[in-house]
Amino acid sequence: MEIISDPHDMQGRARQWRGQGLKVVLVPTMGFFHQGHVSLMEYGKTIGERLVVSLFVNPAQFGPQEDLGRYPRDLDRDARLARDAGVDCLYTPEPGGMYPPGYQTFVEVESLADGLCGASRPGHFRGVATVVLKLLNQVSPQVAVFGEKDYQQLMVVKQMVADLNVPTEIVGRPIVREPDGLAMSSRNTYLSPEERAAALCLYRALLAVRELVATGAKSREHILAAVRQLISATPGSRIDYVSLVDPATLQEVEAIQGEARLLLAVWINNTRLIDNTLLSESRLCCV
Amino acid sequence: MEIISDPHDMQGRARQWRGQGLKVVLVPTMGFFHQGHVSLMEYGKTIGERLVVSLFVNPAQFGPQEDLGRYPRDLDRDARLARDAGVDCLYTPEPGGMYPPGYQTFVEVESLADGLCGASRPGHFRGVATVVLKLLNQVSPQVAVFGEKDYQQLMVVKQMVADLNVPTEIVGRPIVREPDGLAMSSRNTYLSPEERAAALCLYRALLAVRELVATGAKSREHILAAVRQLISATPGSRIDYVSLVDPATLQEVEAIQGEARLLLAVWINNTRLIDNTLLSESRLCCV
Repeated sequence: MEIISDPHDMQGRARQWRGQGLKVVLVPTMGFFHQGHVSLMEYGKTIGERLVVSLFVNPAQFGPQEDLGRYPRDLDRDARLARDAGVDCLYTPEPGGMYPPGYQTFVEVESLADGLCGASRPGHFRGVATVVLKLLNQVSPQVAVFGEKDYQQLMVVKQMVADLNVPTEIVGRPIVREPDGLAMSSRNTYLSPEERAAALCLYRALLAVRELVATGAKSREHILAAVRQLISATPGSRIDYVSLVDPATLQEVEAIQGEARLLLAVWINNTRLIDNTLLSESRLCCV
Repeated sequence: MEIISDPHDMQGRARQWRGQGLKVVLVPTMGFFHQGHVSLMEYGKTIGERLVVSLFVNPAQFGPQEDLGRYPRDLDRDARLARDAGVDCLYTPEPGGMYPPGYQTFVEVESLADGLCGASRPGHFRGVATVVLKLLNQVSPQVAVFGEKDYQQLMVVKQMVADLNVPTEIVGRPIVREPDGLAMSSRNTYLSPEERAAALCLYRALLAVRELVATGAKSREHILAAVRQLISATPGSRIDYVSLVDPATLQEVEAIQGEARLLLAVWINNTRLIDNTLLSESRLCCV
């Protein structure tokens, strides 16, 4: 496995591959790999001829009060996991290479990035859209693979790529969970044992809503009330947002018609976790 | 010469050329071709194997009170001129194809786009940067060629391409002038015969400053005063801005040290014209 840190070197290698007609796949990450990342790499391996994993903790997508400084890092372990997953190139640019002095260009996706995590984290999706576009231009992949845990991010990236005519296909892959249901996240390492137990309330809320919907519940009011009750009963937890949205537009819906997505952001003391699930209108019965 | 209007068709043709290893050059325009455009096409012809000229009057770069509706158009004549210049493909997308319903992604270049035309035309360079990035992604040229009349635009596009790692080289080419010195512009067609005569004040101001500088003038105050005097003596003219700037950063300078660029925007009644020139510090004498 090759490790490249210089953006120009990366662009040169990608140009070489393109010249050889090879299908390139990119998995963009912020590192500190868990099984969720590995599953994206394994999937990428099955669909392309060269698999690039980028590892960049992107300062532009962190707010001034956020966890950029303490975001977990372990390059040696990440390199081992990437090699074991069959990655051809681990791309590890530095902040100074990505945002050299005088850097001043940013990409804004408007309505999709407005609410949810965009409301809680002003500027976050501007940083995400900008760095993803840069990575796509540096690696020129035919396909880029993202996890669905960051569902709003996936939708923002898809919209940006379509709007700007970027010649890359964006693929979303299912959330990977711990055995007890917690969605895998590099930020789970922030949790104390007590907090780790409390963090299960996100998954439990999703499960409870899925059951409600399976028995015919459709209304936003009904669904959100169940989530709020379950989360607020968990010590140390505080809802940032809970939203029932149209899966394509991320606009709030009053009831599930066809499909909707339930999106959750919850603080467990000082750690903010997100999770989401698709909900399909039950056709078995009505409430 | 092929004429393509659908962005997907354009992207497909570009992919085909890239697969054949051909060097593609793009000249982005808003049409109503004059000799300035033709000179860009002729230059593009000499450096590439496939020359694409895009013709798109981009709504996103016009303000609500500006001249989008009356901007001159003549596709038949433009197609003849492009064919005569050896253009391989005239790309004529429609607004609905460039900005389909739900479109919401924009590119912002910050400091370079702030002053000068950016101050007079809020949102203009956001529209320019966005459409140029879209065109570059649709045509995937190795080189894109712009005229230096829109000097700030050229610098904004260069910055965007560098910042976002777009694999295209941006080349600026000299202003082409009418025999009497007026910089060629599609907007010159707005001028009545009297206004056409008055419009010469821009070029006269540039010439006067070049002479001042040749005889040793360096200070901003001295140079701008000469321009203001000359323009204000021209009936029907009104300065939008006159600026002496660093050619790379477009920041105002207090004196010419090495090189500076003089940039001018002047209203001739209801028509806004721009022009600019490079100024090199005279080493012959000092004021």
